[in-house]
Order: sequence, then structure tokens, then C-alpha cells
Amino acid sequence: MAFKTLSSKAAAALDKELMSTGAFSIDQLMELAGLSVSQVVYRVHPPNKGNRVLVACGPGNNGGDGLVAARHLRHYGYQPTIYYPKQSKNELYQRLAKQLEDLDVPFVDDFPTAINSTDHIVDAVFGFSFSGEVREPFPAVIRAMEETKLPVTSVDAPSSWNIETGPPESGLGSKFNPEFLISLTAPKPLVKHFKGRHFVGGRFVSPAIAKKYDFEIPEYQGIDQIVEVGPGGQRL
Amino acid sequence: MAFKTLSSKAAAALDKELMSTGAFSIDQLMELAGLSVSQVVYRVHPPNKGNRVLVACGPGNNGGDGLVAARHLRHYGYQPTIYYPKQSKNELYQRLAKQLEDLDVPFVDDFPTAINSTDHIVDAVFGFSFSGEVREPFPAVIRAMEETKLPVTSVDAPSSWNIETGPPESGLGSKFNPEFLISLTAPKPLVKHFKGRHFVGGRFVSPAIAKKYDFEIPEYQGIDQIVEVGPGGQRL
Repeated sequence: MAFKTLSSKAAAALDKELMSTGAFSIDQLMELAGLSVSQVVYRVHPPNKGNRVLVACGPGNNGGDGLVAARHLRHYGYQPTIYYPKQSKNELYQRLAKQLEDLDVPFVDDFPTAINSTDHIVDAVFGFSFSGEVREPFPAVIRAMEETKLPVTSVDAPSSWNIETGPPESGLGSKFNPEFLISLTAPKPLVKHFKGRHFVGGRFVSPAIAKKYDFEIPEYQGIDQIVEVGPGGQRL
Repeated sequence: MAFKTLSSKAAAALDKELMSTGAFSIDQLMELAGLSVSQVVYRVHPPNKGNRVLVACGPGNNGGDGLVAARHLRHYGYQPTIYYPKQSKNELYQRLAKQLEDLDVPFVDDFPTAINSTDHIVDAVFGFSFSGEVREPFPAVIRAMEETKLPVTSVDAPSSWNIETGPPESGLGSKFNPEFLISLTAPKPLVKHFKGRHFVGGRFVSPAIAKKYDFEIPEYQGIDQIVEVGPGGQRL
């Protein structure tokens, strides 16, 4: 049985629906999304394996998820460092950044240098709305993540991958293969090309919404906000 | 060593600070508070012990925490029922109620009847801002929780207890002794009179805030949003 994925367009419509008729605020959804990301990092790379984690945040919602995840990781005992070169003027993102500053989490400007003093990387650069070209200053970030031997956890998509068709055929990002991926709400079509350990998070979708958007809610266990699935999204 | 508690006044000031200089929105804080409550219920009364849970929600923030907890409990596989007789016109609470309706969670009008078909009760009626008198229609709710043999988990305070001095000396609430209590952010002075299992939740306080308000952040484990402490708040 082919498993169901959510196209970029469908994922955008789902988000919009959650925040209109679904009555969620973006603060709520981002809090739960970021919490899911932090639980994946804890699962695959607990702090006793090295508690330094570098979180690369893009300018949009994917970056916001990264900021929330970093806060939770700090509370779990990690030492996060944030790379967030295109800070949004959006009020929510500014608040998320302030919450990290209040926890003495450092923000750094130079990703390729920062990568030399971390144990784990969270790729929260681009999410399901990415298409087209990787704009400055992110090409160097993609390149560093492509070349590093450190484990990378990507949020919703390995950044630079096309949401529908996966890794670029050549050039920047074509050799970017993160070890870990967390799909938020539901896997996107690109997961067919993903070979690492794959999780689904975002335990807030109602059965009615899942039915409308034609995907299955995975079987979360206990109080977990995440569940591991096959690389392509298959039930394990 | 006497352990530190947070007076009603200090708790209100702390909340205000988190939402001003702390840069948190009430949506974020309530999401994390309600999540903590849901984790306590799962810990003390997992769904295989009976998955029906009756959540009594008051008109203020304590009730909002209950609504969020009920949503998470629904996702964990519980069958929550909500008693929420004084629905706030506040936009956030209306959204939290709508999120439950979308999960087919029933709202009931008659608490003393509902108590006969549940396995566990969450008392989210009054929180740290309670003082004075229990207003209608809540006296019957307090009385039912006083008389029931079912386990009750109270949020921040056993409802009807004075935040500083504990249970009323006589009359309504004087015999209300919930089995479980979750103190949000930090225990309030009433915990000196509490005899059951006691948890602290709300893993979002920065060390600087805890220092300013003169309490200790308990030692949360792993990714837990809650930690069990002594009845009075002592480290276990």
C-alpha cells in the first residue's frame, strides 16, 4: 500500500485550516511543533552523547519551530547555539528569540565556524513552503551541512530539497542527506528519497482533519509527541 | 530547610512578568501548563486503568489549563468529558473549547451526574487567584469532589482552598482532599496542608526568573514536563 503524503499546497491549506476553523493560534501550533522537534533530538542524540546543539533557523515558520525546539532543548540540559541570520520582524519570532536570550542561549553569525564546536545540528532553515533557489546567506549553511560528518536533524524537509521531488539533481544540496528527519503533521512527498531515521510529530491533528486531507495519523505511544516511522513514512 | 512557595500575589506578578518582559504569550504558557497537567494524569492514572476523565473547568486561567489538558488527554487515548458551566467570552478560551469540539469531546451540564460515569476527575476550577467564596454553580462541584471515592487531580490548588492557608476550617471544601496535585511553576503556600502525591509542572521558567521570585526550579528528568516532589514540595 502506498502511504499518504501531503503536498506543499495541501500542507499550506491544512495549516491555514488549523488556524481558522480549527481555532488554533500559531503560538500553540509552533509550540507543539517545536516540542516535537526537541523530542526527536532527545531520542536520537540524548545530552549525554554531547549536549552542544547548533540550531540553524530560516526566516519563516520552519525557523520558528527551531527557536521553540532550542528553548525546550535548553530546559532538557543541552547547550544550544542559534544561527538565525534573517531575523523576522514578526512579533512572534521576536518573542521566541527573546525567550532564548533570557536563557542565555547564544546567537552566532558564522555557521561554518559554529559547526566546529557542536555535537549535533538542527536544520530548521526551510520547510514545506520552500521552492526555487537557496538565497544568501544560506548556501554556505547547506554546504556545511552537506559536508559535515555530524548528525543533522531536519525539520519537515532537508533544506534545499524540493518538497515534491526531493534532492536537487546536481549542485548545492544534491549530496545533503541528513541522518534524521521529523515530518510535521504528515510526511511530504520528498520523504520517498529520504534514507535516514524518520519521525512524525505534531500531535494535534483531529481525525476529521486527517480524513479531509487524506492521510493517516500515526500511532503515537503514551504521552509522546513524536513517533518513528519508516524512511518513506511507512508504519514500523 | 524550609522550601520555597509562591504566594498568590507573587504568582500573579510572575505570570505578568512572563507575559511582558518574558515575551511569552498566554497561548504558549497555557499550552505548556495544560500539557503538564495531562502528563500528571497519564502518570497517576494511565488510560488502561480506565480512560474516562471528567474535567471540571472554572471561568479563568485554571479552567483554560483544564481545556488544554483535556485535548492532550484525548490524543493520548482518553475519553474526556468537560464540565465548563461559565464559559468565558475570552477569545482564547473559546478557541480551546472549539478545539475540543472538533475532537468530539462532549461538554456536560450536570457535574454530580457526570461523576457517576467517569474513572478520574481533573479539578481545574480555581487556581492561584482564588479567594473568598465559591460562587454558583461551583458549590455542588466542590461537594461532589469532596464526597467521591474517585481519584481527583487538582490543578495548582484544590479548588475552594485558600491559596495561603489551605483548606477552609469548616463547611464546603473543608474535607476536600484530592489524591493528586500539580503545582504550576512553583508550589503555593497551601501545599503545606496537602497529603497526596504532588507534582510540579511548567518547564519554561528561566533560572533568572526563579532567582528573582526566590524559588528553586525542580530537577525535571529527560523530556518530562513534570516532576514529582514531596507533598509539601520537598525534593524526593
